[in-house]
Amino acid sequence: MKSRAAVAWEAGKPLEIEEIDVAGPKEGEVLVRVVATGVCHTDAFTLTGADPEGIFPSILGHEGGGIVEEVGPGVTSVQPGDHVIPLYTPECRECKFCKSGKTNLCQAIRATQGQGLMPDGSSRFSHNGKTLYHYMGTSTFSEYTVLPEISLAKISKDAPLDKVCLLGCGITTGIGAVLNTAGVEPGSTVAVFGLGGIGLSVIQGAVMARASRIVCIDLNPDKFDMAKRLGATDFVNPKDHDQPVQDVIVDLLDGGADYSFECIGNVDVMRAALECCHKGWGESVIIGVAGAGQEISTRPFQLVTGRVWRGTAFGGVRGRTELPGYVERYLAGEIKIDEMVTHTMGLDEINHAFDLMHEGESIRSVVLY
Amino acid sequence: MKSRAAVAWEAGKPLEIEEIDVAGPKEGEVLVRVVATGVCHTDAFTLTGADPEGIFPSILGHEGGGIVEEVGPGVTSVQPGDHVIPLYTPECRECKFCKSGKTNLCQAIRATQGQGLMPDGSSRFSHNGKTLYHYMGTSTFSEYTVLPEISLAKISKDAPLDKVCLLGCGITTGIGAVLNTAGVEPGSTVAVFGLGGIGLSVIQGAVMARASRIVCIDLNPDKFDMAKRLGATDFVNPKDHDQPVQDVIVDLLDGGADYSFECIGNVDVMRAALECCHKGWGESVIIGVAGAGQEISTRPFQLVTGRVWRGTAFGGVRGRTELPGYVERYLAGEIKIDEMVTHTMGLDEINHAFDLMHEGESIRSVVLY
Repeated sequence: MKSRAAVAWEAGKPLEIEEIDVAGPKEGEVLVRVVATGVCHTDAFTLTGADPEGIFPSILGHEGGGIVEEVGPGVTSVQPGDHVIPLYTPECRECKFCKSGKTNLCQAIRATQGQGLMPDGSSRFSHNGKTLYHYMGTSTFSEYTVLPEISLAKISKDAPLDKVCLLGCGITTGIGAVLNTAGVEPGSTVAVFGLGGIGLSVIQGAVMARASRIVCIDLNPDKFDMAKRLGATDFVNPKDHDQPVQDVIVDLLDGGADYSFECIGNVDVMRAALECCHKGWGESVIIGVAGAGQEISTRPFQLVTGRVWRGTAFGGVRGRTELPGYVERYLAGEIKIDEMVTHTMGLDEINHAFDLMHEGESIRSVVLY
Repeated sequence: MKSRAAVAWEAGKPLEIEEIDVAGPKEGEVLVRVVATGVCHTDAFTLTGADPEGIFPSILGHEGGGIVEEVGPGVTSVQPGDHVIPLYTPECRECKFCKSGKTNLCQAIRATQGQGLMPDGSSRFSHNGKTLYHYMGTSTFSEYTVLPEISLAKISKDAPLDKVCLLGCGITTGIGAVLNTAGVEPGSTVAVFGLGGIGLSVIQGAVMARASRIVCIDLNPDKFDMAKRLGATDFVNPKDHDQPVQDVIVDLLDGGADYSFECIGNVDVMRAALECCHKGWGESVIIGVAGAGQEISTRPFQLVTGRVWRGTAFGGVRGRTELPGYVERYLAGEIKIDEMVTHTMGLDEINHAFDLMHEGESIRSVVLY
């Protein structure tokens, strides 16, 4: 079938709107009509060419909300008409990772997903006979996309897809990092580095966890207002201080943060986030994705004296099992998404969404098909 | 009073046996007659001058077993005749750290201990009127030493002090790192880097935790025999492999270790220990103490894909509360110490203990007063 799509023909170039061909779902696969998709920094990162896993030409996009159009043979967990959120972290419930109970990093289709292909090793996308590659197993920048059944969370039909699409990445990642990965306890102090969509979602998670202090760190003080409205209590602009920011936070929080979150992808900030943690128990969670080949460093003394360094992907959330609950919490008013959607636009204007992001103008732009 | 002691007059020089002066215990302090003391790598490290906290002249030694000789005013938890193990990590039960329930790193006397002084800011040791500094709050290389009450674990009189003195550092550190810091579950796989006293004790801890595989890594295959007798199951000499040792272990353990322990103090090994951990959940614990200014590094991807980097000091053990139980487990045959004592000697031969350690001839030498 035909589908409108924004194609990433090559690294560093704007996306081009094309009418592409989408093949129907094979065994275990599902055809989804994407209703709305967010535009995330990770899409932009891959488009720059800096992502070592980036493949071109491809269909980017991984924050989608859609409706099942058709299911392939053997699909049992969803049917046409179901509302779904595509999952770049699938949940097969059968691999060693899913069965471990310790991680959400299902590896069932990791190899082919990383190659921009469906689990059978082929692509469902083409343009004038030329193969277009999948991206993160989701490719939500095409109105019609094909995913493995294990990569779809079935959600309530009551939820507006142009909002809950953002649960497909940033918001869930930030909240999950707090609730799942760190396990922040009531009364804890939290430091959040970087106030993009992820950082703001970490604030939401910290509020849900009933943190006593939520300290935000950003070089752009314009972002503090939104952070405050979401529940942040303290605001630090590193430019206002001569000391390293970790020392500022250690002073501010009487020894340091119980938990810190790096939401940027900057390895120097990752170090600051670890070192601002409280001696004896402070835990730092890396959420941001650093550039290829970059490394984090610190003195081992930081760890020997009780700090813990972790990371998280998709907030440790098992998508099929937990994401429907996130949608319910949005519907109940516990998770705020509407405030995050600062811009909406049609697919034709998707490159503008990237511009807004690079200029720091948007929290999230949502593309409506 | 007079006391025989091995004095570290200056960095890089052998200890000298002297008759020193020891002042009586002040308020909250206890005079202890040391019966036996282990000689640990940390003593040797400080003696080289590389320890930024090293102060000279001083009385080193921190793995002691002794008997209370006299108590100062206000001391209530021990009395003359009690058998005790000196604690370089005290337990005041009143500071923010002790009350947190999250760490054993009591900070009540941290500042003065780091300066080689008792909590009132003075030293109890002198020689011909010249001040000698304390070390790690313990100074067990003097037959008579003075400690704060909060730095003494009162233990069973049934335990031989020339053995359980080793619970004052290395053995407890290794076992505690497994049981307290990592919380190794039955059936887990464990990798142990470095088979000195700490590494061998990690093996003991892993056996106590009922780990399914215990992989030992050391450049000296002579150490594998003892490791095997303690319960290790697999043995890797990095010299036997062309690949990085982390890759060897990932292959050997079908994805990597559930838990790894660095027991050397080498920052490159710390990296290997992290990277040999299983994606999704592997946790690496740094036990070894690196040289001043040295840093650990890795790609943040290692953490984002689920590995956790921790450290431990004294195995996370709260000395006054938990160490008496370690002594009981030794008496019950659950913790092996006798096998670790490869050499004993009088105080006059203490420099020989350092030689044996540097030559890799000893696991632990114990000095008997």
